[in-house]
Amino acid sequence: MQSKTEWMELALQLAKATEGQTSPNPSVGAVVVKDGIILGMGSHLQAGEAHAEVHAINQAGDKAKGAEIYVTLEPCAHFGKTPPCANLIVESGIKKVYIACVDPNPQVAGKGIKILEQAGIEVEVGIKETQAILLNRKFFHYMEKKRPYVTLKAAMTLDGKTATSTGDSKWITSKEAREMVHQSRHQHDAILVGKETVLKDDPQLTTRLPQGGKNPIRIILDTHLTIKGDYQIFSRDVPTWIVCTQEADVKGHKELYPHVEFIQLPTKTIELADLLAILGERQIQSLYVEGGQTVHASFLKEQLADEYHWYIAPKLLGGQDARSVIGGISPLKMDEATDLDISEIKEVGQDILVVARPKKGEV
Amino acid sequence: MQSKTEWMELALQLAKATEGQTSPNPSVGAVVVKDGIILGMGSHLQAGEAHAEVHAINQAGDKAKGAEIYVTLEPCAHFGKTPPCANLIVESGIKKVYIACVDPNPQVAGKGIKILEQAGIEVEVGIKETQAILLNRKFFHYMEKKRPYVTLKAAMTLDGKTATSTGDSKWITSKEAREMVHQSRHQHDAILVGKETVLKDDPQLTTRLPQGGKNPIRIILDTHLTIKGDYQIFSRDVPTWIVCTQEADVKGHKELYPHVEFIQLPTKTIELADLLAILGERQIQSLYVEGGQTVHASFLKEQLADEYHWYIAPKLLGGQDARSVIGGISPLKMDEATDLDISEIKEVGQDILVVARPKKGEV
Repeated sequence: MQSKTEWMELALQLAKATEGQTSPNPSVGAVVVKDGIILGMGSHLQAGEAHAEVHAINQAGDKAKGAEIYVTLEPCAHFGKTPPCANLIVESGIKKVYIACVDPNPQVAGKGIKILEQAGIEVEVGIKETQAILLNRKFFHYMEKKRPYVTLKAAMTLDGKTATSTGDSKWITSKEAREMVHQSRHQHDAILVGKETVLKDDPQLTTRLPQGGKNPIRIILDTHLTIKGDYQIFSRDVPTWIVCTQEADVKGHKELYPHVEFIQLPTKTIELADLLAILGERQIQSLYVEGGQTVHASFLKEQLADEYHWYIAPKLLGGQDARSVIGGISPLKMDEATDLDISEIKEVGQDILVVARPKKGEV
Repeated sequence: MQSKTEWMELALQLAKATEGQTSPNPSVGAVVVKDGIILGMGSHLQAGEAHAEVHAINQAGDKAKGAEIYVTLEPCAHFGKTPPCANLIVESGIKKVYIACVDPNPQVAGKGIKILEQAGIEVEVGIKETQAILLNRKFFHYMEKKRPYVTLKAAMTLDGKTATSTGDSKWITSKEAREMVHQSRHQHDAILVGKETVLKDDPQLTTRLPQGGKNPIRIILDTHLTIKGDYQIFSRDVPTWIVCTQEADVKGHKELYPHVEFIQLPTKTIELADLLAILGERQIQSLYVEGGQTVHASFLKEQLADEYHWYIAPKLLGGQDARSVIGGISPLKMDEATDLDISEIKEVGQDILVVARPKKGEV
C-alpha cells in the first residue's frame, strides 16, 4: 500500500466498519503514515468517545512527528465531548493532513482546516471525496436539511406484491434478507411503521443480530390514536413513539401506554414533512421506514424518501388485487413516475436487493 | 487453449452465436483439433444448410485424419436435409469424438454415437453437458414436451407496474432494453399477445434490429374474434395468426383479414395447454409472450411459462390501482406463489433485466 488513494481507502474502510454505531456523530477513519509505513489507524467508535484521529495518533505516539495523516472527514475544531482534533494534530507534530471531505457541521465547516493551516501544516482536501460523502450521506443530509435521511424498505415478490388479497405475507423473503434488515435497523436512529402494520403483523421492530446491535427508536403513525392492546412494539426495553394529530385523545392513551412518548401534530392529518422536521429537532438523523403500502405511498408522493431498499424474492404471486408494494392512487401518466438511480444490485440469499436513490435533481 | 474443456467451450461459443437463427434445428458448434492445433471450426447456421461438423471438417480437409472433434450435440444419424454427420465423421478419418450432450431428437438419440462406435471411433460424452443443454433448452423442451418453450416478457417499474390506472405505459424501459427485446423476438419462432395489447398499443411485433433479424410469427389471442380495424400487427410482411374459440365467426373474419391464419379451438375459452399443443404440431418450438397482465396471469396460473424476462425500470409509479405486471386474482396464501430460480441479473441501459425460470421440480 503505497499511494495516497490507497491510504485514504483504508481510512474509509475503517470508517465504514462503524457505520450506524456513531450516531449522532458521523463515521470517521484515520490513518497515520510516515515513509510508507502505517504507524497508526483509528475509527470513531461511539458518540462521546475519542475521535478517529485520537486513536490513530495515540497509536503512532512520538513517531507521529513529521508523519502524514489521512482522515475521511475534516478534523473537528470545537470542544464538544472531546477536545478539538485539529489542535491534537498540531501538537502531534504531523506535517501534512489529507482530508477526504469538509465537515458540513457548521461548528466545524472549514474551521478545522484553518487551525491546521495557521499552524503551518500542509492540507490537501478531496481524495475520495465522493465516497466519503456517500459513506456519511445520512449525516450530510441531516446537517443540510435538518431532517432525518429516510430509507424506505420493502420486501416484495418479483411482481411487486407484498401480500395476497387476504393480507397473507409470510414469508416473502429469505432468512438472509431478513437478517440484513436487522443490520439496517442497527444503522438507523429510528424505525417507522403505520398502525396497520402493527395490527396485522405485531412486529417487535428491534435489532436482533446474532451479536446484538443497536435498537432504533420505534415510531408508529396512528392519526386518531385508535391503537389498543398489548402489541410487541410496546415492549419497555426500547423507546416507542406514537405520532397522532390534533383531535387524538393523547391523555387517555398516555394512561394506556405510560412509557410511550406521544408526538401530537397540530394538524388534521399527519404531514410527513412536519413530522420529519420534529424528528430532526429530536436528533433523529436517519429513519428506516418499514411500510406498509399506504405509508410508502405517502413518502413517495411527498418525495421524502432518500433511499430505497427493495428486497425482491424470486417468486411470482399474481393478482391485480394482491397488495402492491406501494399503495394509494396511481398517477395518470407514466412520466409522473419517480425516477431513481440504482446504486446497488446484489443477491442476498436467494433474493435480490436493489438499493436506489432519487435521480439527482429530483429531490 | 489446450484442454478438452476449453475446446468444448469454444464449440459452445460457436453454437451460441447462432442462437435463434437455426430453428427448427438446434444451435450446434464443432471444433476439429489435432496435436493441440485447431484445424477447423463451424456452426450450424440455418435450417437446411450444412451442420456444424460439416463446416469444421471441410475446413480441416485431409488434416482431419487422426484428429479429434468437439461437438456440442450428438452428430446426426439420419438423412434429413443433409446427409448424416456421423457418417461424415467416419469418412473423415477422425479418431475421437467429444460430445457435450446426446441429441433428444428421437431420430438421433444415441444412433449417431452408435454409428461412430461401430466404426471404431472413440466417443466421450458429457463435457459441459449442462451448458450445452441450457443453450438449446428450447429445442430440448420441444423434443420432450412437443410444445413450445414459453418465455414471458414484461417491462415494469420497480414497484411491479406496467401502466398507470388510465393505461398509460409509454415509456417504462430504456432504448437499450427495448432493443434487447428485439433480440429476443429474433430468437423465438412466435410471439404472442392478448387482443387488449393490440387495441391499446397497436404494436408491430416485428424484429427491428439495426441489422435486420428474423421475424417471429405473430399470434393474437381473441376469444370471440371481436378485433376489427387496420392494426399494424396485420401487416402482410410477417405471418399473423389469430386464436379464437368455438363460437367465433371465423368465416366473417377471414374476409376481413384474408392473409391472416385462424386457429379455432373447439372450446368455449382459450385453453393455453391446448393451444401450445397445436403450436407444437405446427413446429413452433419457442414462444415469446409479451403480455399484457391477463395473458401473463393465465400463463402463470397454468404454470406454462418456462422462462421469465423481467425488465425493471429504475422508477416508482405507486398506486394499488396502477396496472400490475400480472393481473387476475391473487392466491389466498403467500406460499401459493410460484417459486423461481434466478438465472441472470444484469443491467441493460439504466434498467435491470432479471431472467428467471420455475424452480426445479415445480413445472
